[in-house]
Amino acid sequence: YRARRRVEFADTDMGGIVHFSRFFVFMETAEHQLLCELGSEPMPRIEDRLYGWPRVSAECEYLSPARMGDELEILVRVARKGRASLTYEFLFNCRDRVIARGRMTTVHCRMDTPNGPRSEPIPRQISELLRPTE
Amino acid sequence: YRARRRVEFADTDMGGIVHFSRFFVFMETAEHQLLCELGSEPMPRIEDRLYGWPRVSAECEYLSPARMGDELEILVRVARKGRASLTYEFLFNCRDRVIARGRMTTVHCRMDTPNGPRSEPIPRQISELLRPTE
Amino acid sequence: YRARRRVEFADTDMGGIVHFSRFFVFMETAEHQLLCELGSEPMPRIEDRLYGWPRVSAECEYLSPARMGDELEILVRVARKGRASLTYEFLFNCRDRVIARGRMTTVHCRMDTPNGPRSEPIPRQISELLRPTE
Amino acid sequence: YRARRRVEFADTDMGGIVHFSRFFVFMETAEHQLLCELGSEPMPRIEDRLYGWPRVSAECEYLSPARMGDELEILVRVARKGRASLTYEFLFNCRDRVIARGRMTTVHCRMDTPNGPRSEPIPRQISELLRPTE
Repeated sequence: YRARRRVEFADTDMGGIVHFSRFFVFMETAEHQLLCELGSEPMPRIEDRLYGWPRVSAECEYLSPARMGDELEILVRVARKGRASLTYEFLFNCRDRVIARGRMTTVHCRMDTPNGPRSEPIPRQISELLRPTE
Repeated sequence: YRARRRVEFADTDMGGIVHFSRFFVFMETAEHQLLCELGSEPMPRIEDRLYGWPRVSAECEYLSPARMGDELEILVRVARKGRASLTYEFLFNCRDRVIARGRMTTVHCRMDTPNGPRSEPIPRQISELLRPTE
Repeated sequence: YRARRRVEFADTDMGGIVHFSRFFVFMETAEHQLLCELGSEPMPRIEDRLYGWPRVSAECEYLSPARMGDELEILVRVARKGRASLTYEFLFNCRDRVIARGRMTTVHCRMDTPNGPRSEPIPRQISELLRPTE
Repeated sequence: YRARRRVEFADTDMGGIVHFSRFFVFMETAEHQLLCELGSEPMPRIEDRLYGWPRVSAECEYLSPARMGDELEILVRVARKGRASLTYEFLFNCRDRVIARGRMTTVHCRMDTPNGPRSEPIPRQISELLRPTE
Protein backbone atom coordinates (compact mmCIF):
# COMPACT_ATOMS: atom_id res chain seq x y z
CA TYR A 1 0.00 0.00 0.00
CA ARG A 2 1.19 3.46 -0.87
CA ALA A 3 0.23 6.75 0.80
CA ARG A 4 1.33 10.32 0.26
CA ARG A 5 1.83 13.15 2.69
CA ARG A 6 3.00 16.69 2.12
CA VAL A 7 5.13 18.06 4.96
CA GLU A 8 3.37 20.99 6.65
CA PHE A 9 4.94 23.91 8.48
CA ALA A 10 3.55 22.65 11.79
CA ASP A 11 5.37 19.33 11.23
CA THR A 12 8.74 21.10 11.45
CA ASP A 13 10.76 22.19 14.46
CA MET A 14 13.31 24.96 15.01
CA GLY A 15 15.97 22.81 13.34
CA GLY A 16 14.05 23.40 10.09
CA ILE A 17 13.24 19.73 9.54
CA VAL A 18 10.30 17.43 10.29
CA HIS A 19 10.12 16.75 14.02
CA PHE A 20 11.01 13.11 14.62
CA SER A 21 7.76 12.44 16.52
CA ARG A 22 5.69 13.39 13.47
CA PHE A 23 6.82 10.30 11.57
CA PHE A 24 4.81 8.22 14.04
CA VAL A 25 1.72 10.26 13.21
CA PHE A 26 2.43 9.74 9.49
CA MET A 27 2.70 5.96 10.07
CA GLU A 28 -0.58 5.87 11.92
CA THR A 29 -2.36 7.86 9.25
CA ALA A 30 -1.04 5.53 6.55
CA GLU A 31 -2.17 2.52 8.63
CA HIS A 32 -5.66 4.04 8.93
CA GLN A 33 -5.83 4.72 5.21
CA LEU A 34 -4.93 1.08 4.65
CA LEU A 35 -7.67 -0.11 7.04
CA CYS A 36 -10.15 2.14 5.24
CA GLU A 37 -9.09 0.67 1.89
CA LEU A 38 -9.95 -2.75 3.35
CA GLY A 39 -13.42 -1.54 4.25
CA SER A 40 -12.71 -1.22 7.97
CA GLU A 41 -12.15 1.69 10.35
CA PRO A 42 -9.49 2.46 12.96
CA MET A 43 -12.03 2.38 15.84
CA PRO A 44 -15.17 0.64 14.62
CA ARG A 45 -18.28 0.26 16.75
CA ILE A 46 -19.81 -3.13 15.92
CA GLU A 47 -23.01 -4.24 17.63
CA ASP A 48 -22.45 -1.70 20.37
CA ARG A 49 -18.91 -2.84 21.04
CA LEU A 50 -15.96 -0.58 20.45
CA TYR A 51 -12.85 -2.03 18.85
CA GLY A 52 -9.45 -0.51 18.19
CA TRP A 53 -5.80 -1.20 17.48
CA PRO A 54 -3.63 0.01 20.38
CA ARG A 55 0.07 0.12 19.60
CA VAL A 56 2.42 -2.17 21.54
CA SER A 57 5.60 -0.90 19.96
CA ALA A 58 6.80 1.60 17.41
CA GLU A 59 10.21 2.50 16.08
CA CYS A 60 11.77 4.64 13.41
CA GLU A 61 15.21 5.09 11.87
CA TYR A 62 15.98 8.52 10.42
CA LEU A 63 18.18 8.43 7.33
CA SER A 64 17.80 11.85 5.73
CA PRO A 65 15.98 15.01 6.85
CA ALA A 66 12.63 16.06 5.31
CA ARG A 67 11.69 19.71 4.96
CA MET A 68 8.52 21.73 4.61
CA GLY A 69 6.73 21.20 1.33
CA ASP A 70 8.47 17.89 0.66
CA GLU A 71 6.06 15.29 -0.66
CA LEU A 72 6.68 12.05 1.18
CA GLU A 73 5.76 8.74 -0.34
CA ILE A 74 4.97 6.19 2.33
CA LEU A 75 5.12 2.50 1.47
CA VAL A 76 3.36 0.22 3.93
CA ARG A 77 3.61 -3.54 4.16
CA VAL A 78 2.49 -6.13 6.70
CA ALA A 79 5.64 -7.77 8.02
CA ARG A 80 3.99 -10.18 10.46
CA LYS A 81 0.45 -11.25 11.19
CA GLY A 82 -0.46 -12.96 14.46
CA ARG A 83 -3.83 -14.08 15.79
CA ALA A 84 -4.55 -10.61 17.18
CA SER A 85 -1.51 -8.57 16.20
CA LEU A 86 -0.17 -6.92 13.07
CA THR A 87 3.33 -5.63 12.46
CA TYR A 88 3.62 -3.02 9.74
CA GLU A 89 6.77 -1.76 8.07
CA PHE A 90 6.99 1.68 6.54
CA LEU A 91 9.39 3.21 4.07
CA PHE A 92 9.41 6.99 3.66
CA ASN A 93 10.79 8.26 0.36
CA CYS A 94 11.09 11.75 -1.02
CA ARG A 95 11.89 11.61 -4.72
CA ASP A 96 14.99 9.38 -4.84
CA ARG A 97 16.03 9.76 -1.19
CA VAL A 98 15.07 7.32 1.58
CA ILE A 99 13.99 9.57 4.46
CA ALA A 100 13.10 7.05 7.13
CA ARG A 101 12.16 3.46 7.87
CA GLY A 102 9.55 2.62 10.51
CA ARG A 103 7.93 -0.36 12.17
CA MET A 104 4.83 -0.55 14.31
CA THR A 105 3.02 -3.42 16.04
CA THR A 106 -0.65 -3.09 16.87
CA VAL A 107 -3.06 -5.46 18.60
CA HIS A 108 -6.72 -5.78 17.75
CA CYS A 109 -8.63 -5.10 20.97
CA ARG A 110 -12.05 -4.63 22.39
CA MET A 111 -11.71 -1.11 23.85
CA ASP A 112 -14.74 -0.67 26.09
CA THR A 113 -14.14 -3.31 28.74
CA PRO A 114 -13.95 -2.19 32.37
CA ASN A 115 -10.29 -3.23 32.76
CA GLY A 116 -9.01 -1.47 29.67
CA PRO A 117 -8.28 -2.85 26.18
CA ARG A 118 -8.48 -6.67 25.83
CA SER A 119 -7.02 -8.41 22.78
CA GLU A 120 -9.39 -10.16 20.34
CA PRO A 121 -8.60 -12.08 17.14
CA ILE A 122 -8.31 -9.97 14.01
CA PRO A 123 -11.70 -10.00 12.22
CA ARG A 124 -11.69 -12.53 9.38
CA GLN A 125 -12.58 -10.11 6.63
CA ILE A 126 -9.50 -7.98 7.47
CA SER A 127 -7.20 -10.89 8.20
CA GLU A 128 -7.92 -12.47 4.83
CA LEU A 129 -7.08 -9.30 2.97
CA LEU A 130 -3.79 -8.63 4.77
CA ARG A 131 -0.98 -10.96 3.93
CA PRO A 132 2.62 -10.61 5.14
CA THR A 133 4.90 -9.73 2.23
CA GLU A 134 8.64 -9.51 1.78
CA TYR B 1 -4.61 31.96 38.90
CA ARG B 2 -1.03 31.62 37.77
CA ALA B 3 0.51 28.73 35.85
CA ARG B 4 4.00 28.13 34.50
CA ARG B 5 5.17 26.39 31.37
CA ARG B 6 8.64 25.86 30.01
CA VAL B 7 8.79 25.98 26.19
CA GLU B 8 9.85 22.60 24.79
CA PHE B 9 11.69 21.88 21.56
CA ALA B 10 8.58 20.21 20.11
CA ASP B 11 6.62 23.45 20.72
CA THR B 12 8.82 25.29 18.21
CA ASP B 13 8.65 25.41 14.42
CA MET B 14 11.25 26.00 11.72
CA GLY B 15 11.02 29.74 12.39
CA GLY B 16 12.72 28.99 15.73
CA ILE B 17 9.82 30.25 17.83
CA VAL B 18 6.82 28.68 19.54
CA HIS B 19 4.28 27.58 16.94
CA PHE B 20 1.21 29.82 17.25
CA SER B 21 -1.15 26.85 17.67
CA ARG B 22 0.69 25.74 20.82
CA PHE B 23 -0.55 28.78 22.76
CA PHE B 24 -4.04 27.26 22.58
CA VAL B 25 -2.72 24.07 24.15
CA PHE B 26 -1.03 26.16 26.87
CA MET B 27 -4.34 27.96 27.54
CA GLU B 28 -6.20 24.70 27.85
CA THR B 29 -3.65 23.21 30.21
CA ALA B 30 -3.81 26.32 32.42
CA GLU B 31 -7.63 26.10 32.40
CA HIS B 32 -7.45 22.44 33.46
CA GLN B 33 -4.99 23.23 36.24
CA LEU B 34 -7.44 25.88 37.45
CA LEU B 35 -10.35 23.38 37.40
CA CYS B 36 -8.21 20.92 39.36
CA GLU B 37 -7.39 23.60 41.91
CA LEU B 38 -11.16 24.03 42.38
CA GLY B 39 -11.53 20.33 43.08
CA SER B 40 -13.02 19.49 39.69
CA GLU B 41 -11.77 17.78 36.54
CA PRO B 42 -11.81 18.68 32.84
CA MET B 43 -14.03 15.69 31.94
CA PRO B 44 -15.61 14.37 35.13
CA ARG B 45 -17.82 11.29 35.21
CA ILE B 46 -20.56 11.96 37.79
CA GLU B 47 -23.18 9.29 38.51
CA ASP B 48 -22.38 7.61 35.19
CA ARG B 49 -22.75 10.81 33.19
CA LEU B 50 -19.83 12.32 31.38
CA TYR B 51 -19.39 16.09 31.49
CA GLY B 52 -16.94 18.36 29.73
CA TRP B 53 -16.18 21.89 28.62
CA PRO B 54 -16.15 22.11 24.81
CA ARG B 55 -14.72 25.33 23.45
CA VAL B 56 -17.00 27.65 21.48
CA SER B 57 -14.34 30.20 20.64
CA ALA B 58 -10.67 30.86 21.16
CA GLU B 59 -8.39 33.67 20.12
CA CYS B 60 -4.85 34.84 20.65
CA GLU B 61 -2.82 37.95 19.93
CA TYR B 62 0.91 37.46 19.50
CA LEU B 63 3.03 40.32 20.80
CA SER B 64 6.55 38.96 21.09
CA PRO B 65 8.07 35.62 20.11
CA ALA B 66 8.88 32.91 22.69
CA ARG B 67 11.79 30.54 22.22
CA MET B 68 12.83 27.13 23.48
CA GLY B 69 13.66 27.04 27.17
CA ASP B 70 11.73 30.24 27.89
CA GLU B 71 9.72 29.95 31.07
CA LEU B 72 6.27 31.34 30.39
CA GLU B 73 4.13 32.68 33.19
CA ILE B 74 0.46 32.33 32.36
CA LEU B 75 -2.06 34.49 34.21
CA VAL B 76 -5.66 33.29 33.96
CA ARG B 77 -8.77 35.19 34.93
CA VAL B 78 -12.49 34.62 34.40
CA ALA B 79 -13.71 37.52 32.28
CA ARG B 80 -17.36 36.50 32.06
CA LYS B 81 -19.52 33.86 33.68
CA GLY B 82 -22.83 32.83 32.15
CA ARG B 83 -25.33 30.18 33.25
CA ALA B 84 -23.40 27.46 31.38
CA SER B 85 -20.43 29.29 29.87
CA LEU B 86 -17.12 30.67 31.06
CA THR B 87 -14.87 33.13 29.28
CA TYR B 88 -11.25 33.05 30.38
CA GLU B 89 -8.55 35.58 29.60
CA PHE B 90 -4.90 34.66 29.53
CA LEU B 91 -1.75 36.74 29.70
CA PHE B 92 1.54 35.11 28.75
CA ASN B 93 4.64 36.76 30.16
CA CYS B 94 8.29 35.85 29.92
CA ARG B 95 10.29 37.80 32.45
CA ASP B 96 9.33 41.43 31.68
CA ARG B 97 7.99 40.86 28.15
CA VAL B 98 4.33 40.26 27.31
CA ILE B 99 4.39 37.36 24.85
CA ALA B 100 0.71 36.92 24.07
CA ARG B 101 -2.82 37.59 25.19
CA GLY B 102 -5.55 34.98 24.77
CA ARG B 103 -9.25 34.50 25.33
CA MET B 104 -11.31 31.33 25.34
CA THR B 105 -15.00 30.61 25.88
CA THR B 106 -16.11 27.19 27.05
CA VAL B 107 -19.56 25.76 27.74
CA HIS B 108 -20.30 23.22 30.43
CA CYS B 109 -21.92 20.25 28.66
CA ARG B 110 -23.16 16.76 29.17
CA MET B 111 -20.95 14.90 26.66
CA ASP B 112 -22.54 11.45 26.35
CA THR B 113 -25.92 12.30 24.83
CA PRO B 114 -26.80 10.69 21.51
CA ASN B 115 -26.92 14.02 19.65
CA GLY B 116 -23.57 15.29 20.82
CA PRO B 117 -22.72 17.73 23.63
CA ARG B 118 -25.70 19.50 25.31
CA SER B 119 -25.15 22.51 27.55
CA GLU B 120 -25.92 22.24 31.27
CA PRO B 121 -25.61 24.87 34.02
CA ILE B 122 -22.19 25.17 35.62
CA PRO B 123 -22.15 23.02 38.80
CA ARG B 124 -22.72 25.21 41.85
CA GLN B 125 -19.55 24.26 43.67
CA ILE B 126 -17.48 25.48 40.69
CA SER B 127 -19.63 28.47 39.91
CA GLU B 128 -19.33 29.79 43.44
CA LEU B 129 -15.58 29.61 43.39
CA LEU B 130 -15.13 31.37 40.04
CA ARG B 131 -15.88 35.02 40.03
CA PRO B 132 -15.30 37.37 37.09
CA THR B 133 -12.50 39.80 37.90
CA GLU B 134 -11.15 42.91 36.23
CA TYR C 1 -9.37 29.44 -2.50
CA ARG C 2 -10.51 26.01 -1.43
CA ALA C 3 -8.50 23.36 0.42
CA ARG C 4 -9.36 19.92 1.73
CA ARG C 5 -8.20 18.09 4.81
CA ARG C 6 -9.13 14.68 6.12
CA VAL C 7 -9.28 14.52 9.92
CA GLU C 8 -6.61 12.14 11.27
CA PHE C 9 -6.68 10.13 14.47
CA ALA C 10 -3.87 12.25 15.91
CA ASP C 11 -6.02 15.36 15.37
CA THR C 12 -8.56 14.08 17.90
CA ASP C 13 -8.57 14.23 21.68
CA MET C 14 -10.15 12.02 24.36
CA GLY C 15 -13.48 13.78 23.75
CA GLY C 16 -13.54 11.98 20.38
CA ILE C 17 -13.50 15.18 18.34
CA VAL C 18 -10.87 17.30 16.64
CA HIS C 19 -8.79 19.13 19.24
CA PHE C 20 -9.57 22.84 19.01
CA SER C 21 -5.91 23.78 18.58
CA ARG C 22 -5.68 21.70 15.38
CA PHE C 23 -7.95 24.11 13.50
CA PHE C 24 -5.15 26.67 13.70
CA VAL C 25 -2.80 24.19 12.06
CA PHE C 26 -5.42 23.55 9.35
CA MET C 27 -5.72 27.32 8.75
CA GLU C 28 -1.98 27.69 8.42
CA THR C 29 -1.71 24.79 6.01
CA ALA C 30 -4.50 26.24 3.85
CA GLU C 31 -2.73 29.64 3.90
CA HIS C 32 0.51 27.99 2.77
CA GLN C 33 -1.26 26.13 -0.02
CA LEU C 34 -2.68 29.47 -1.14
CA LEU C 35 0.78 31.10 -1.11
CA CYS C 36 2.13 28.18 -3.13
CA GLU C 37 -0.69 28.58 -5.66
CA LEU C 38 0.47 32.19 -6.05
CA GLY C 39 3.98 31.02 -6.82
CA SER C 40 5.40 31.97 -3.42
CA GLU C 41 6.49 30.06 -0.33
CA PRO C 42 5.76 30.41 3.39
CA MET C 43 9.40 31.19 4.25
CA PRO C 44 11.21 32.15 1.06
CA ARG C 45 14.91 32.91 0.94
CA ILE C 46 15.39 35.71 -1.60
CA GLU C 47 18.88 37.02 -2.35
CA ASP C 48 20.14 35.55 0.90
CA ARG C 49 17.41 37.17 2.96
CA LEU C 50 14.85 35.11 4.81
CA TYR C 51 11.23 36.25 4.75
CA GLY C 52 8.18 34.93 6.54
CA TRP C 53 4.67 35.67 7.71
CA PRO C 54 4.52 35.65 11.52
CA ARG C 55 1.00 35.65 12.93
CA VAL C 56 -0.16 38.64 14.95
CA SER C 57 -3.56 37.23 15.82
CA ALA C 58 -5.68 34.16 15.28
CA GLU C 59 -9.16 33.22 16.34
CA CYS C 60 -11.69 30.48 15.77
CA GLU C 61 -15.35 29.90 16.54
CA TYR C 62 -16.42 26.28 16.91
CA LEU C 63 -19.93 25.56 15.63
CA SER C 64 -20.14 21.79 15.28
CA PRO C 65 -17.70 19.00 16.18
CA ALA C 66 -15.60 17.21 13.53
CA ARG C 67 -14.62 13.57 13.94
CA MET C 68 -11.96 11.28 12.61
CA GLY C 69 -12.24 10.54 8.92
CA ASP C 70 -14.37 13.61 8.26
CA GLU C 71 -13.32 15.39 5.10
CA LEU C 72 -13.18 19.10 5.85
CA GLU C 73 -13.57 21.64 3.10
CA ILE C 74 -11.71 24.84 3.96
CA LEU C 75 -12.68 28.05 2.18
CA VAL C 76 -10.10 30.83 2.45
CA ARG C 77 -10.58 34.47 1.55
CA VAL C 78 -8.51 37.61 2.10
CA ALA C 79 -10.63 39.89 4.30
CA ARG C 80 -8.20 42.78 4.55
CA LYS C 81 -4.92 43.69 2.89
CA GLY C 82 -2.60 46.26 4.44
CA ARG C 83 0.82 47.46 3.31
CA ALA C 84 2.52 44.56 5.12
CA SER C 85 -0.36 42.60 6.64
CA LEU C 86 -2.98 40.16 5.42
CA THR C 87 -6.13 39.07 7.22
CA TYR C 88 -7.55 35.76 6.08
CA GLU C 89 -10.96 34.33 6.87
CA PHE C 90 -11.61 30.61 6.89
CA LEU C 91 -14.80 28.60 6.72
CA PHE C 92 -14.65 24.91 7.62
CA ASN C 93 -17.45 22.80 6.18
CA CYS C 94 -18.12 19.09 6.38
CA ARG C 95 -20.77 18.13 3.88
CA ASP C 96 -23.66 20.48 4.71
CA ARG C 97 -22.53 21.40 8.24
CA VAL C 98 -20.48 24.46 9.12
CA ILE C 99 -17.84 23.18 11.52
CA ALA C 100 -15.91 26.33 12.34
CA ARG C 101 -15.07 29.84 11.25
CA GLY C 102 -11.57 31.25 11.65
CA ARG C 103 -9.62 34.44 11.13
CA MET C 104 -5.89 35.02 11.11
CA THR C 105 -3.73 38.11 10.58
CA THR C 106 -0.18 37.74 9.37
CA VAL C 107 2.54 40.30 8.69
CA HIS C 108 5.13 39.99 5.96
CA CYS C 109 8.51 40.22 7.69
CA ARG C 110 12.20 39.92 7.12
CA MET C 111 13.03 37.11 9.58
CA ASP C 112 16.83 37.13 9.84
CA THR C 113 17.48 40.53 11.40
CA PRO C 114 19.37 40.61 14.70
CA ASN C 115 16.40 42.05 16.64
CA GLY C 116 13.83 39.52 15.44
CA PRO C 117 11.22 39.81 12.67
CA ARG C 118 10.82 43.29 11.07
CA SER C 119 7.81 44.06 8.89
CA GLU C 120 8.33 44.71 5.16
CA PRO C 121 5.76 45.56 2.47
CA ILE C 122 4.07 42.59 0.84
CA PRO C 123 5.95 41.72 -2.38
CA ARG C 124 4.16 43.21 -5.39
CA GLN C 125 3.67 39.95 -7.26
CA ILE C 126 1.76 38.50 -4.28
CA SER C 127 -0.08 41.69 -3.41
CA GLU C 128 -1.42 42.02 -6.93
CA LEU C 129 -2.82 38.52 -6.93
CA LEU C 130 -4.53 38.77 -3.55
CA ARG C 131 -7.56 40.98 -3.45
CA PRO C 132 -9.89 41.38 -0.47
CA THR C 133 -13.28 39.82 -1.26
CA GLU C 134 -16.64 39.86 0.47
CA TYR D 1 18.29 11.31 35.77
CA ARG D 2 14.65 11.63 36.68
CA ALA D 3 12.05 13.91 35.07
CA ARG D 4 8.35 14.38 35.66
CA ARG D 5 5.55 15.14 33.27
CA ARG D 6 1.84 15.55 33.89
CA VAL D 7 -0.32 14.22 31.03
CA GLU D 8 -2.28 17.05 29.40
CA PHE D 9 -5.62 16.86 27.61
CA ALA D 10 -3.94 17.67 24.29
CA ASP D 11 -1.64 14.64 24.78
CA THR D 12 -4.66 12.31 24.57
CA ASP D 13 -6.51 10.98 21.55
CA MET D 14 -10.08 9.82 21.02
CA GLY D 15 -9.20 6.48 22.62
CA GLY D 16 -8.91 8.41 25.92
CA ILE D 17 -5.24 7.62 26.41
CA VAL D 18 -1.94 9.35 25.65
CA HIS D 19 -1.29 9.31 21.90
CA PHE D 20 1.65 7.00 21.23
CA SER D 21 3.58 9.69 19.35
CA ARG D 22 3.61 11.94 22.44
CA PHE D 23 5.98 9.58 24.27
CA PHE D 24 8.66 10.59 21.79
CA VAL D 25 8.10 14.23 22.70
CA PHE D 26 8.32 13.31 26.40
CA MET D 27 11.64 11.50 25.74
CA GLU D 28 13.06 14.48 23.93
CA THR D 29 12.03 16.88 26.66
CA ALA D 30 13.63 14.66 29.30
CA GLU D 31 16.81 14.47 27.18
CA HIS D 32 16.88 18.28 26.95
CA GLN D 33 16.37 18.65 30.69
CA LEU D 34 19.31 16.32 31.18
CA LEU D 35 21.52 18.37 28.80
CA CYS D 36 20.53 21.52 30.67
CA GLU D 37 21.46 19.89 33.98
CA LEU D 38 24.90 19.27 32.48
CA GLY D 39 25.24 22.94 31.64
CA SER D 40 24.61 22.50 27.91
CA GLU D 41 21.72 23.26 25.56
CA PRO D 42 19.90 21.21 22.92
CA MET D 43 21.01 23.54 20.10
CA PRO D 44 23.91 25.63 21.33
CA ARG D 45 25.53 28.33 19.24
CA ILE D 46 29.26 28.28 20.02
CA GLU D 47 31.60 30.77 18.35
CA ASP D 48 29.02 31.38 15.63
CA ARG D 49 28.57 27.68 14.89
CA LEU D 50 25.28 25.95 15.48
CA TYR D 51 25.31 22.48 17.03
CA GLY D 52 22.52 20.02 17.66
CA TRP D 53 21.63 16.39 18.33
CA PRO D 54 19.59 14.98 15.43
CA ARG D 55 17.95 11.65 16.16
CA VAL D 56 19.05 8.61 14.16
CA SER D 57 16.58 6.21 15.72
CA ALA D 58 13.82 6.11 18.29
CA GLU D 59 11.62 3.34 19.60
CA CYS D 60 9.04 2.77 22.28
CA GLU D 61 7.23 -0.20 23.79
CA TYR D 62 3.82 0.50 25.29
CA LEU D 63 3.00 -1.59 28.35
CA SER D 64 0.06 0.14 30.02
CA PRO D 65 -2.06 3.12 28.99
CA ALA D 66 -1.60 6.57 30.57
CA ARG D 67 -4.52 8.94 30.99
CA MET D 68 -5.06 12.64 31.43
CA GLY D 69 -3.80 14.00 34.72
CA ASP D 70 -1.49 11.04 35.30
CA GLU D 71 1.88 12.14 36.63
CA LEU D 72 4.55 10.27 34.70
CA GLU D 73 7.96 9.69 36.19
CA ILE D 74 10.57 9.39 33.47
CA LEU D 75 13.88 7.71 34.26
CA VAL D 76 16.67 8.41 31.78
CA ARG D 77 19.97 6.62 31.50
CA VAL D 78 22.77 6.62 28.93
CA ALA D 79 22.94 3.09 27.54
CA ARG D 80 25.80 3.63 25.08
CA LYS D 81 28.23 6.42 24.38
CA GLY D 82 30.12 6.60 21.08
CA ARG D 83 32.53 9.21 19.77
CA ALA D 84 29.67 11.33 18.47
CA SER D 85 26.55 9.40 19.43
CA LEU D 86 24.53 8.83 22.57
CA THR D 87 21.90 6.15 23.16
CA TYR D 88 19.44 6.94 25.91
CA GLU D 89 16.99 4.56 27.57
CA PHE D 90 13.79 5.77 29.14
CA LEU D 91 11.44 4.17 31.63
CA PHE D 92 8.00 5.72 32.10
CA ASN D 93 6.32 4.92 35.39
CA CYS D 94 3.03 6.06 36.85
CA ARG D 95 2.87 5.21 40.52
CA ASP D 96 3.61 1.46 40.58
CA ARG D 97 2.80 0.75 36.92
CA VAL D 98 5.37 0.67 34.12
CA ILE D 99 3.74 2.62 31.29
CA ALA D 100 6.38 2.44 28.58
CA ARG D 101 10.02 1.83 27.80
CA GLY D 102 11.84 3.90 25.19
CA ARG D 103 15.21 4.16 23.49
CA MET D 104 16.65 6.95 21.38
CA THR D 105 19.98 7.44 19.64
CA THR D 106 21.21 10.91 18.84
CA VAL D 107 24.34 12.15 17.10
CA HIS D 108 26.17 15.33 17.99
CA CYS D 109 26.33 17.40 14.80
CA ARG D 110 27.30 20.75 13.43
CA MET D 111 23.96 21.92 12.02
CA ASP D 112 24.80 24.92 9.83
CA THR D 113 26.92 23.32 7.14
CA PRO D 114 25.78 23.69 3.52
CA ASN D 115 25.18 19.94 3.07
CA GLY D 116 23.08 19.43 6.18
CA PRO D 117 24.09 18.12 9.62
CA ARG D 118 27.65 16.71 9.92
CA SER D 119 28.66 14.61 12.93
CA GLU D 120 31.26 15.98 15.35
CA PRO D 121 32.71 14.41 18.51
CA ILE D 122 30.71 14.96 21.69
CA PRO D 123 32.16 17.99 23.52
CA ARG D 124 34.48 16.87 26.32
CA GLN D 125 32.68 18.63 29.13
CA ILE D 126 29.47 16.75 28.28
CA SER D 127 31.13 13.46 27.48
CA GLU D 128 32.89 13.40 30.83
CA LEU D 129 29.68 13.92 32.72
CA LEU D 130 27.70 11.24 30.91
CA ARG D 131 28.64 7.71 31.68
CA PRO D 132 26.83 4.62 30.43
CA THR D 133 25.12 2.87 33.34
CA GLU D 134 23.39 -0.45 33.76
